[in-house]
Amino acid sequence: MPEIRSIREADWPQVHDLVVEVASAGETYTMEVPRTVEETREFWTGRQVVVAVDGESVLGSAKMGPNRQAQGAHVGTASFVVATAARGRGIGRALGEYAVEWHRANGFTGIQFNAVVSTNTGAIRLWEALGFETIGVVPDAFRLPDGKTGASYADLHVMYLGLADR
Amino acid sequence: MPEIRSIREADWPQVHDLVVEVASAGETYTMEVPRTVEETREFWTGRQVVVAVDGESVLGSAKMGPNRQAQGAHVGTASFVVATAARGRGIGRALGEYAVEWHRANGFTGIQFNAVVSTNTGAIRLWEALGFETIGVVPDAFRLPDGKTGASYADLHVMYLGLADR
Repeated sequence: MPEIRSIREADWPQVHDLVVEVASAGETYTMEVPRTVEETREFWTGRQVVVAVDGESVLGSAKMGPNRQAQGAHVGTASFVVATAARGRGIGRALGEYAVEWHRANGFTGIQFNAVVSTNTGAIRLWEALGFETIGVVPDAFRLPDGKTGASYADLHVMYLGLADR
Repeated sequence: MPEIRSIREADWPQVHDLVVEVASAGETYTMEVPRTVEETREFWTGRQVVVAVDGESVLGSAKMGPNRQAQGAHVGTASFVVATAARGRGIGRALGEYAVEWHRANGFTGIQFNAVVSTNTGAIRLWEALGFETIGVVPDAFRLPDGKTGASYADLHVMYLGLADR
């Protein structure tokens, strides 16, 4: 299992490479490919940013924090990237479990994922395994990488995990 | 009916007052009260910003544009403020109809509202009248202004209107 720790200054170039890899694939995030480490920093911010490391190697990263300001700041959100070469080693799950515990420890009452691409079935299954439910589906809200027949579209799932009874 | 036109430089102080009024009520937006016109400008941005005016008086405003970047930029979103003193005059409806037409004219395939407070029944009824449907409900995601018995919470509705067949 990888170690999960807070990001350090020296990790940013590797996190940038991860984000570029994921953004270039174009399959899971609604984002432009960041051109500089600085652009990655701007995109990859939150109250907490962690990396999953194997020695000096950054295999994945997660950012987390409030999903909305002020009246909505008690519900959190998180985003995740895992290196293609490191898939299938439980890194996404370890980062996801970390994020759930972080939100719980910081008093959030729930976690909302705003836009999980319906074709990203591995992610959906993983979040379901951690207790998340799809609470809404935005039809055709994600443009998949163009195929030979032109643009095609996938749904975006809004997923939620409650952390507190009230 | 008010005139709806693109915002002009001279409108910003009045739009700031509107946003402060709505944010101070604390009932419909997840936001801090902006302290300066500059903070209002940062919050109230989009590809298009319009005001509903009666002569020199700004009675309401809307901002609209893509809900997400890149792979998600074909679905739009919009936000609305109407002066308390001007409620019940059809200003919200006029701004809403403008937003729907603007999205249609600009080739968006749908409009997503990310966070409509469940207690804002006037807004929900209005958006339903324009064809929007609630496609998801985030439980207790909005902290209502504190009452005598402490904090209470309302749900946030994700609402959607499709504009294109595919």
